[in-house]
Amino acid sequence: MLKATVYVTIKQSVLDVQGTAVQGALHSMGFDEVGKVRIGKYLEVELNTSDTAVAEERVKAMCEKLLANTVIEDYRYELQPVK
Amino acid sequence: MLKATVYVTIKQSVLDVQGTAVQGALHSMGFDEVGKVRIGKYLEVELNTSDTAVAEERVKAMCEKLLANTVIEDYRYELQPVK
Repeated sequence: MLKATVYVTIKQSVLDVQGTAVQGALHSMGFDEVGKVRIGKYLEVELNTSDTAVAEERVKAMCEKLLANTVIEDYRYELQPVK
Repeated sequence: MLKATVYVTIKQSVLDVQGTAVQGALHSMGFDEVGKVRIGKYLEVELNTSDTAVAEERVKAMCEKLLANTVIEDYRYELQPVK
């Protein structure tokens, strides 16, 4: 079995409204040292396969089709074996 | 300047409804090899400080007070210098 860890982040050129809101909240709580905040998604997907090459292709397809909105989001992933 | 990367994940004992929904969607799209899916948040926070020890304490406080709901979520973070 493999585990894919997928990180989906908003593209640098796109305004991250959620991040801006969190930045404002942190400032109002006294965390004045906080600069830019960007928020993304973090997914752990278990895969019932042990073929890393196939899994890589499949995870890429999942990201393109469902997990990330590639118009405004970037994604990256890591595969690791699970015992 | 430092950058904190914060990962907020739902505790293992808590049902991840969003993950379950994504798992169902992936299955219905033909990704039958997909097992458990868990979804969390991924945050990048820039900090205008260079003192790692202080930053560590501050990021921990941010997580406890705002970024994570510690009743149902776990968090972990990494600090790295940014040029």
